[in-house]
Amino acid sequence: MKTYLDCIACFFKQALEGARLAGVDEKNQKKILDEVARELPDISIHCSPPEIARGIYRIIEKYSGLADPYLFIKKKSNKLALSIYDRLKEKVSNADNSLMMAVELAIAGNIIDYGVKNTLNVEDELEKILDEENQNIKSQLDSQFNFMDFEDSLKEASNILYLADNAGETVFDRLLIEEIKKAYEKVHIIYAVKEKPIINDALKEDAIECKIDSVAEIISSGSDAPGTVLSLCSESFINIFNSADMVISKGQGNYEALSNASRPVFFLFMAKCPMVARHARCNIRDIILKYSPGREERNGAALSKLT
Amino acid sequence: MKTYLDCIACFFKQALEGARLAGVDEKNQKKILDEVARELPDISIHCSPPEIARGIYRIIEKYSGLADPYLFIKKKSNKLALSIYDRLKEKVSNADNSLMMAVELAIAGNIIDYGVKNTLNVEDELEKILDEENQNIKSQLDSQFNFMDFEDSLKEASNILYLADNAGETVFDRLLIEEIKKAYEKVHIIYAVKEKPIINDALKEDAIECKIDSVAEIISSGSDAPGTVLSLCSESFINIFNSADMVISKGQGNYEALSNASRPVFFLFMAKCPMVARHARCNIRDIILKYSPGREERNGAALSKLT
Repeated sequence: MKTYLDCIACFFKQALEGARLAGVDEKNQKKILDEVARELPDISIHCSPPEIARGIYRIIEKYSGLADPYLFIKKKSNKLALSIYDRLKEKVSNADNSLMMAVELAIAGNIIDYGVKNTLNVEDELEKILDEENQNIKSQLDSQFNFMDFEDSLKEASNILYLADNAGETVFDRLLIEEIKKAYEKVHIIYAVKEKPIINDALKEDAIECKIDSVAEIISSGSDAPGTVLSLCSESFINIFNSADMVISKGQGNYEALSNASRPVFFLFMAKCPMVARHARCNIRDIILKYSPGREERNGAALSKLT
Repeated sequence: MKTYLDCIACFFKQALEGARLAGVDEKNQKKILDEVARELPDISIHCSPPEIARGIYRIIEKYSGLADPYLFIKKKSNKLALSIYDRLKEKVSNADNSLMMAVELAIAGNIIDYGVKNTLNVEDELEKILDEENQNIKSQLDSQFNFMDFEDSLKEASNILYLADNAGETVFDRLLIEEIKKAYEKVHIIYAVKEKPIINDALKEDAIECKIDSVAEIISSGSDAPGTVLSLCSESFINIFNSADMVISKGQGNYEALSNASRPVFFLFMAKCPMVARHARCNIRDIILKYSPGREERNGAALSKLT
């Protein structure tokens, strides 16, 4: 997904919220906004939003001197999500289709996102997920919830690359990975986190804290963009990305960065901004499981229609 | 009201929406945003938002070549408001306190504001105003609805300066002016509009179209900022502003520009953005009639407390 012109106002909003969260004083908040403004004319809107956002958070880091202002939030999110793990697990066990429930919960867990909304009340949101009455569970498979394709792909896969999004959400990912491994014992799952702190995105330590290491191999993408921008990732990660039988991509940032990827990807996310919702043709807060066949396959299909 | 850092993101949003409404293509929309960005570091946040917004709309004008892209919208708003004049008048006549009702309707008419929201459905909003059930009429005088001060001031006034806001809203202003003149026959009212087109702000032709000339003298403020920024107004206007017995200021833009004025002002507006709501200590969409005693009087009161 390219950056829409509508995203520009949002970059300034994010810069200000991020600066405040990092404890930057008002004078330096203005300096941060000025620096973002100075860089804007040189930014290509053909970049994806996470690539631009990365630069913004680096400017905030320069002024705040803090490499990881979201550390406390990440620890809190991990702790909160871990505290409800048993209840989530029970929900999955009691479901008619436990894999589908695990998928839906993994997407619902994507609500833990401080890049979009700094004032998020994670406790309230997690309670909503657990609340049977309020949960936004898909009762039927629609065009934005490609569960059958997802299941078909799982059946064929020997190795899966799972792209993490936020800390805390990692617990929800673990539940889904556990369900996948229960159904397909021999599958090898690689769980990719960010290389360095960026917003509240999960790092290796978060994945370990949430016990992902008991079900998957944890690696770094080699990048600190808040989304898997391949041009910023390590060569070893790109090799895994290209060779995996299946890629499960969590969160809005990864969707923004990879929606035009050459290979097939399953995007599991909740749309949290109007531009992503527009691009994915869904509503804000919809639970999305979107199968993208990959640019190569799409181009092939287009060509075969022409010939 | 100074410009908050939160307003900066909103300036970019307004620039983009304004550019689109003026029919600027995407390439030039980006150029407009880049130009706003380049000017940002030089902008003092001690300016009020209308002063900065003025510059933004001038950039849009440069790229669109259109001096008045909101002309069609203004004409439509005038027509719509005129078409419900009789129903509004009836509402005023039937009210227990017709002056208070006219004040409340004049403020409700402030919903016609394209600077804040370009996608505004004026018809729907006007229907809501007319709908007895949904109207947000103050049943009691609270701290943000200084009607008694307003009435006391009217009793003493021989000449009143009424600062217009948007086209269409002008019809609501006429209703209030008619009520004022009914109660205080000899009062002379000067109705001040903008000098040149800016967003959907009322110009002289809008005031005439809405028949303000039958109840008041129409003048220009001499400025094309979307709010009465005194430093940009003509000398003759400033003289009238300073010498009027009473100033009635309509709309958010005028509040932003004049909230720190030296003289007393009655601000009639609906808060439409969170920063104005915070500054005025009200909620968004609240009907506000705020008496500001003026900086000089406030400073005097502060001094008298010290001595």
